[in-house]
Formats: sequence, C-alpha cells, structure tokens
Amino acid sequence: MAKEGTEMTEETEHMIEKNGAKETETVVSAGDAKEMRAVILSGFGGLNKLRVTKKAMPEPQEGEVKIRVKACGLNFLDLMVRQGNIDSPPKTPLVPGFECSGIVEAMGENTKGFEIGDRVMAFVNYNAWAEVVCTPLDYVYNMPDDMTFPEAAAFSMNFVAAYMMLFEVANLREGMSVLVHSAGGGVGQAVAQLCSTIPSVTVFGMASSFKHEAIKDSVTHLFDRNIDYVQEVKKISPEGVDIVLDCLSGENTGKGLGLLRPLGTYILYGSSNMVTGETKSFFSLAKSWWQVEKVNPIKLYEENKVIAGFSLLNLLFKQGRCGQVKTVVEKLFSLYNQKKIKPVVDSLWALEEVKEAMQRIHDRGNIGKLILDVEKSPTPLHHDSPVSNLSLENSWPNQHRLRFLDSTKSDNNEYIFQWHWFLW
Amino acid sequence: MAKEGTEMTEETEHMIEKNGAKETETVVSAGDAKEMRAVILSGFGGLNKLRVTKKAMPEPQEGEVKIRVKACGLNFLDLMVRQGNIDSPPKTPLVPGFECSGIVEAMGENTKGFEIGDRVMAFVNYNAWAEVVCTPLDYVYNMPDDMTFPEAAAFSMNFVAAYMMLFEVANLREGMSVLVHSAGGGVGQAVAQLCSTIPSVTVFGMASSFKHEAIKDSVTHLFDRNIDYVQEVKKISPEGVDIVLDCLSGENTGKGLGLLRPLGTYILYGSSNMVTGETKSFFSLAKSWWQVEKVNPIKLYEENKVIAGFSLLNLLFKQGRCGQVKTVVEKLFSLYNQKKIKPVVDSLWALEEVKEAMQRIHDRGNIGKLILDVEKSPTPLHHDSPVSNLSLENSWPNQHRLRFLDSTKSDNNEYIFQWHWFLW
Repeated sequence: MAKEGTEMTEETEHMIEKNGAKETETVVSAGDAKEMRAVILSGFGGLNKLRVTKKAMPEPQEGEVKIRVKACGLNFLDLMVRQGNIDSPPKTPLVPGFECSGIVEAMGENTKGFEIGDRVMAFVNYNAWAEVVCTPLDYVYNMPDDMTFPEAAAFSMNFVAAYMMLFEVANLREGMSVLVHSAGGGVGQAVAQLCSTIPSVTVFGMASSFKHEAIKDSVTHLFDRNIDYVQEVKKISPEGVDIVLDCLSGENTGKGLGLLRPLGTYILYGSSNMVTGETKSFFSLAKSWWQVEKVNPIKLYEENKVIAGFSLLNLLFKQGRCGQVKTVVEKLFSLYNQKKIKPVVDSLWALEEVKEAMQRIHDRGNIGKLILDVEKSPTPLHHDSPVSNLSLENSWPNQHRLRFLDSTKSDNNEYIFQWHWFLW
Repeated sequence: MAKEGTEMTEETEHMIEKNGAKETETVVSAGDAKEMRAVILSGFGGLNKLRVTKKAMPEPQEGEVKIRVKACGLNFLDLMVRQGNIDSPPKTPLVPGFECSGIVEAMGENTKGFEIGDRVMAFVNYNAWAEVVCTPLDYVYNMPDDMTFPEAAAFSMNFVAAYMMLFEVANLREGMSVLVHSAGGGVGQAVAQLCSTIPSVTVFGMASSFKHEAIKDSVTHLFDRNIDYVQEVKKISPEGVDIVLDCLSGENTGKGLGLLRPLGTYILYGSSNMVTGETKSFFSLAKSWWQVEKVNPIKLYEENKVIAGFSLLNLLFKQGRCGQVKTVVEKLFSLYNQKKIKPVVDSLWALEEVKEAMQRIHDRGNIGKLILDVEKSPTPLHHDSPVSNLSLENSWPNQHRLRFLDSTKSDNNEYIFQWHWFLW
C-alpha cells in the first residue's frame, strides 16, 4: 500500500526549532534523469544535519562504473563521519555512505570488466547514499546470483573487515577463541559466521541482553555488554583468548590486551565509544583518544602478544589495497555460494528515514545490518493506527523526544512525508 | 690429531689479573660417570664468569628424558643471560644453554614416547651446555635420520622462532616482502630459507659486508648493517615491506614500523643491542629500554599496522605452549626432509672454547649458528705455528686484548688447555 503514491516532488527548506517546537523535514522525488535523490550531510553535527535532496546526476569518468543504487549499508562509522569525528574529515556538504549494491547503468571510457545490467556490490569513497553513484572499477564486484541487493549492501564492509581481521591480520585456525564486542552488530555477526567456518572455534560475544535470544546460536558464550566481561571470560577460559576484536577502544584496549593468550592478537577496528552523543564533543573525543594507553613493544615481546589496527576505509581509499580486497571478496562470495555465510539484515529504511536508522545504530538497537533501501518509501503514518509510528526516546540525557511520521497528499496526489519531533 | 689425548683431568682455580696481567682459565675432563662436564656461569658479567667444571650427573625425574648431549646451540640470548640482561634472571651459578641435540640415555618414571638410543633435539630451560641434560618429555623431539647433531642444535631455536614469526605471528604469503636484521646470523638464515619455501617472497637483509658473499644467494637485497637501511629499502620498494623482524629494538622499532606496508607486521624478537659491552650496564640497559617508543593503538588503526613481540623462551618455559611448538617442529622436520631447509652451522667449538664462541657472536663474526660440540676438544696451540691461535681484539673500548691458547701435557700424559689473555 505504501508502495503506491511514493513519488515525492516537493522540497521544502529544512527547518528546526528546538524545545517544544516542531521539525519539518524534506522528502524529494527522483523525477528527472538529470537529477537524483541523495542524502546530504550539510555540516558535521547531529541528526539535523542530514536531509534528502536532489543532486545533479553523476556521470562516470574514465575507469569508473555508474551504478543505479538499490541498497546502501549504514555503519557506525557513518555516525562518526556525521560528527566529523574522523581523521582528516572531508568538507561538507557531502553525501555520506561507503558501500552499496545496484545495477550497472553505464561505464566511463576505457572501462572494462562489466556489462550494463550487471548486478554489483561496490565500495564508494562517500556518496553511496544516493540513487546513483559512480566509483572506480576496482571497487566494484559482480554479485552472486542468489544474493539480494540488501544482502550485498550488508556484506561488503562487514564481511570484508571481519575476514581480513580474522584471517589476514590475525591467523584464525582450528581450536582458537575469539572475543568480539557488539556481537549483535553487522561486523559481530559476520565475525561469528566466519568463525563457524573453522572447526572448534569458540566465540565470546558481548551484546545487549535483548539481543541474546536472536544471536545465541552464532555465539558460543554471550555476555551482556554492561558486565565485567574480563572476569566472565576468565571464568570460562582462565588462559584468555586468541583473538580480541575491539570496536570500542578506550579502556577496552588494555582489557583486551590483558585477555590475550600467548601469541594472541588484539585488533582495534573502530572507536565507536567516541560517538557519545548527538554532536561532536571535542572534549570527549580528546578524552577517549588519550584513554587508549600506548603500548610498550618490550612488553609485547615478553608476553608474546600482538596488537593491530584495522581500518578498511583507509586500506581501500588511502592505501590503495583494492587488489588484496578483491581477492578477499572472491573468497567470501565463494563461502556465500556454499551457503556457509549469509549477511544478517536488521532492517530496511528509506533514504528519508536515515535519521531514524542512525538513531537505531547509535542506540545499539540493531541485530545485524541496517540498510538504506533506495526504492523504499518511508512508512506513512496511518491515521487509524497512529501508535505504530510513534516512539518515545530518551537517549539524549535530560531530554525526551516524541517523533512521528505524518503523511499528507500533495496537490498532484503524491505523498509528502514529514517527521515531526517534539522535544521537551 | 686434536682428537687424541683430549681427556682433561685437572681443574685449576680461575684467576684473573687486569691491566697487563695474565688470565688463566680452566679445562676439566669428564671422567667418572657420577659426574659430567658443564659450562658454569659463576655470576652475571663478562666472559670471565664462564668456565668448564664438573657437576653431579643429573638424573631424570618423572616425565623427563635424560640426554647424552652431542651438540648445543649458542645464541645472542646467551650473551644477555651472561650479563643478567634479561627479565627476572635466575640465580647464579648456573649452567647456560637452551637447546641441544644428543642421544636418549634414560627416562624418568612414567615417561613414554622415546627409546634409549633415540637421536633427539631438545629445548632445556638452562643447563644445555653440559655433557648430560634432563628435560621434560614435551621439549624433546626425535630428529630426522639425515640430520646431524650440530644441525639439530642449530635448528631448534632458530627455525622454530623464524617459522612461528613468519607463519603464526605474521602471515607470510606469496608475493610478500620481509626485512630481517642480522641476516647472516642463525635466525636470519632460517628466515631467509623459510621465505624461499613461499613463491615470490622478497627478503631484505642487513649484514656486515664481509658476510655478503657467503649469504647473497639467500637474501634478495643485502645491505651493510651500518647504512641507513630505511632509505635503501624505500629506494627499492617505496611502499615498504610486509614483515619486519627486529632483534635490535631501540630506534629500530620506529624505523621498522615506519617501513611497514598497510597490513604489515613488525615483530620484535630480541634486543641484542642491549648487549653493548662486556658487562651489564644498568644505565645502558635502561637507556635502550626507554629508547623503544611506545606505540599508540589509534595510529595502528589509521595506518593498518601490526606490532608484535616474540620470545620463544617465554613461550616454552613461562607460557607452556609446548604443544603448539611441537606442531611447528613437525612441520619444520618435514621441510628438512624435503630438503627445502637446512641449518647453516658457522663453526663448532669445544665447551672450553665457549668464551671465544661468545666473543664471535658478540662481534657478529658468525655466518649461521655457533655450536658447542661436546665431544670436541679445544684446538691446542702448536708451538711451531703460534699465530693460528692468536688474535688481537679491540671490542672493548680503550682496551686491547691479546689471547692465545696454550697446551701442556700433564703428568699422566693428558693435555691441559689454558687460555692466556694480555690486556692493556
């Protein structure tokens, strides 16, 4: 029902009034082929910096593939980008998003290896959250036939990162043990599945208790994310674990190193703890940064330990390791075709729902991956069942928000969607 | 010729007079079966703390194997032990040495898996430099039939360390590059050989120029150890290298990390730079220690780098990873049997020549491994060719030493060997 009448034509100015006021957001249609819809980050900061707007249709340069996007992945990293909480942030306004899946629509000059109509998965250095993206050939991969577009968008970053950490940075083998924070998230679920491809691997995972039922089959030992996991792991495995995958940083680095068995590997692959609130706080950033204690190499020598950092984005876009990533993607697609791995999609969101999706990942409400489904229209508020689109949120300290999605019909009989926020 | 008349019976007191004086050292025979010859370190310090003496014959406890030693390995680490330059040094007097090969002579109660007469290679937690050692079952391995005793003693620590660093800590694969300091040493040569078992691996090695001719076939790019290797490596491979194996520590840690390609691994496996002179200098130790800059995990994350420490002794004797090491030894023996690797023995030395052997490794004069050959007798000084056992050394700053080996016959017609030192 929502599928009908989803062409949205109006663009209204972004407007926000805080404290008891109402925020009206904008929904734009993809009409003319000279333009496309995209999510725009107008400046670093809170959710209110995001909106959907029209942009000029991109055209592929030499060596680039033009993709009609079907689905985009949303990662914790995108929250850090939104806050400008990354190393050398780019200029705003920008279109966020690093991964998508879709259909090849055109190719630049001298660009070979794909046919128009190919179903592809791609990495993009920003700009993924749009109806159309252009990205260099080296970042595009033909999808397995059985893979859906949301699966592909859930696959690229999470499975490549998980695979490279487990098998290229660390050296996961039979009988080893792995500890992963955020076991219910996209990377966490990819890690758990990849561990299951190796015999006798024990996975220790942290996740909010409400996720335990859903993910308990993929994780050997599940702990609530708020408990003292060091003690809990030691109760089960006094010697510690072979691999620690840490996306939290801060004091968890010391804890992770402390939990390593001899020859064990600690890998820092994110600093999601740095995303503490709605807007970037330089103070809290600096604090988190320095909370990561530096490591003495002599101590690593005495204890036979390994510490590593892993950033897939830097690997792809700053360090030019596409060839190595391509090999990994091929191995992963093979595992997918053998039905040994399968991306877990938490939920699909329209581009217009990007804020809600971000809030969900921020609140760690997701199990598996959040996907922006480009062809999806935001769920309209049915006036006979208003509760379904109402939610009370209190993730901002000392502030409550009531949000609901309302839809009205425009003059030419098309839906206009608006999110309303009440803050108090 | 030297083989005859090598039974030595007299033990004289160790005597040293500095500055223009003469040092007389002691050589002892292995006579009675209740006793055995062993190298003793009487206290931490210089070469003069070492001597050969008689000790009570050890007997195997439950779970131990008694080995009639044929050959022992001498490592840079033994120099650090001599100086007390290690983490929690044991009490002196002690018998140094961590590895040997020989023949099983007896077994403790409930000790299975070996037969008397078996040719074995073994790790020992000290006490290797003796005619007989007892060590737990888990540290003993049956040698390949074709392997000589000196080869086995040259094999254990160096090849196990090289293998574990390359294939378990790092993840050496086709097409990668490896940088190794001390390419002419025991570990260096093991690293070079193991790299040659993987297709298209580039080895960058540092070694004193006089070794280059001897080792040039095993190392792709050889540099003199005194040059700026960072610049030289970058000239050939601007992107850097995949694996850096560092036994020097200090400022080389930063250089090594800087040379890593993305996803590259730096491994600190020793601190031979800490052995700077004859005796332990607490000041220089502390200085070296702090010269190793601590590493920021966030920087590793941004740069996609891995830093590791590797200490085989700690792994074996403090961290109880015998099982993992046994698997590695089996893989290495298989490579040996396929003639893909072969330990390089630099030279064989009698127990009585341990000081000269240590000086050789300290001066980095060796190509491959120094072996103490328990059945070898020290080369006597022939009075018609005195020069062959004379050497002028100036490795002590502002001090020169003239040493020569003299032999006289005792009353019962056996040789007595004495080293004479002139210091000025």
